[in-house]
Amino acid sequence: MKLLRVGTAGAERPALLDAEGVLRDLTGIVDDIDGALLADDAALGRVRAAADAGELPALDATGLRIGPPLGRIGKIVCIGLNYHDHARETGAEPPAEPVVFFKAPDTVVGPNDTVLVPRGSVKTDWEVELAVVIGRTARYVADDEDPLAYVAGYAVAHDVSEREFQIERGGTWDKGKNCETFNPLGPWLVTADEVGDPQDLSLKLWVNGEPKQDGTTAEQIFSVAEVVRYVSRFMVLYPGDVINTGTPAGVALGAPEPKPFLRAGDVVELEIDGLGRQRQEFKNA
Amino acid sequence: MKLLRVGTAGAERPALLDAEGVLRDLTGIVDDIDGALLADDAALGRVRAAADAGELPALDATGLRIGPPLGRIGKIVCIGLNYHDHARETGAEPPAEPVVFFKAPDTVVGPNDTVLVPRGSVKTDWEVELAVVIGRTARYVADDEDPLAYVAGYAVAHDVSEREFQIERGGTWDKGKNCETFNPLGPWLVTADEVGDPQDLSLKLWVNGEPKQDGTTAEQIFSVAEVVRYVSRFMVLYPGDVINTGTPAGVALGAPEPKPFLRAGDVVELEIDGLGRQRQEFKNA
Repeated sequence: MKLLRVGTAGAERPALLDAEGVLRDLTGIVDDIDGALLADDAALGRVRAAADAGELPALDATGLRIGPPLGRIGKIVCIGLNYHDHARETGAEPPAEPVVFFKAPDTVVGPNDTVLVPRGSVKTDWEVELAVVIGRTARYVADDEDPLAYVAGYAVAHDVSEREFQIERGGTWDKGKNCETFNPLGPWLVTADEVGDPQDLSLKLWVNGEPKQDGTTAEQIFSVAEVVRYVSRFMVLYPGDVINTGTPAGVALGAPEPKPFLRAGDVVELEIDGLGRQRQEFKNA
Repeated sequence: MKLLRVGTAGAERPALLDAEGVLRDLTGIVDDIDGALLADDAALGRVRAAADAGELPALDATGLRIGPPLGRIGKIVCIGLNYHDHARETGAEPPAEPVVFFKAPDTVVGPNDTVLVPRGSVKTDWEVELAVVIGRTARYVADDEDPLAYVAGYAVAHDVSEREFQIERGGTWDKGKNCETFNPLGPWLVTADEVGDPQDLSLKLWVNGEPKQDGTTAEQIFSVAEVVRYVSRFMVLYPGDVINTGTPAGVALGAPEPKPFLRAGDVVELEIDGLGRQRQEFKNA
């Protein structure tokens, strides 16, 4: 299923994009697309049954904003330097174990919302990423367990990053990862059954129409399964938590000087196989 | 005012500790102690008026669990190495600007709840900290503004830390700061008017009754006001967000070998002037 949330920011309603590409209203069937829903097999089953039976009313998509496809996000765990090609381009050694940092849930906006270049920023950068949405509480996932059983679905995430704040201002990466609007998410939360192998997805990103990133999750240093297991041994992953699993090569930081960092007026588009497409115009904060 | 939340975990009710030390029920006056309340001067005024008029029913505190004094926390921004004496003991240079990392809100527990030593941990450490609770949205706080006007109140926070995970496992500090139960908070959220100067508070911590930390916020490298202003230029601070402002000297990491890291059975107590006292028993996860 392709689950999404549509309407004005902060007042989105739950919806579903059916197999024919028709937007369907889930109001009355579920309260929201959130961790509580994703942890509730019976509720998900009701959504699926209603969709299959053609019982969901169509929504007029004209002019309707698409919000982030997940409400009440608990936390966003991010994995850094998780693609062989991206580690090479930034001059970093491939990490021996996953690099973990955080984005606050309040950085999340819809897939086509405006993204703000922070005041004083000269190194705002793009990163297309596969977002993993947790559906079951994962705590110390054992070696013989399938970590993907804890995954409810996947989405496109844009891990917007300010490189000076991230790298040159002391402390941890979090400082350059949490500026306002820095995590466009969506358009859809695609349930895991529909995605298939998460290590066989192509990710692409364009800036002002020019191709910049063209990677595949096959290049991930730590697979989605390995990341879920690893993270669950340092913290508990709850339904409605998100993991941004890293970006492939092709970011501005990896380009020759002068590096083409983003400015107001730039348009970034990104997509992942089967997970949909985002488009953001950048403006000054 | 001393605001708090009492009852079983996840089902706490709002309460107030009055000037005579009597616990008063706020059910019916406010829904919860959260960002929405802290941003609502009228609602806070009603609480104050009801308290002053002696209209709030007393609650029997016997056997009542104290929860974290703040619900629906948005994010927890943490400042590292923010005390001159702590920077010295860890062998770190005092940072040129604040070191920022994150704790997830799901790490928060009540002030006297059990804290879990993570599986595989041999370097679980303590850190008493002054937590700042945001009451107004702070975005690019200007040089001529008073950052403390964005602060609703203060609380005791225990920034429990796993040093191997934090320092020796690659990536950022977040990996050692987000284990389950790693942020006891409370007992009270004390409104800023009652706290006075946040740079004149003593912080103390004991392990199994033995004094370990005995510091003062006067030793902070970056004051609460400077921290709020600084952080607001990298991310937006919303009502209900928390800033843990760093710990003074006296942590296990700063002790001579063999460093006295925490184990199951240890009891940690901590307190800050006017903000109350915590007591946690440590158990194995």
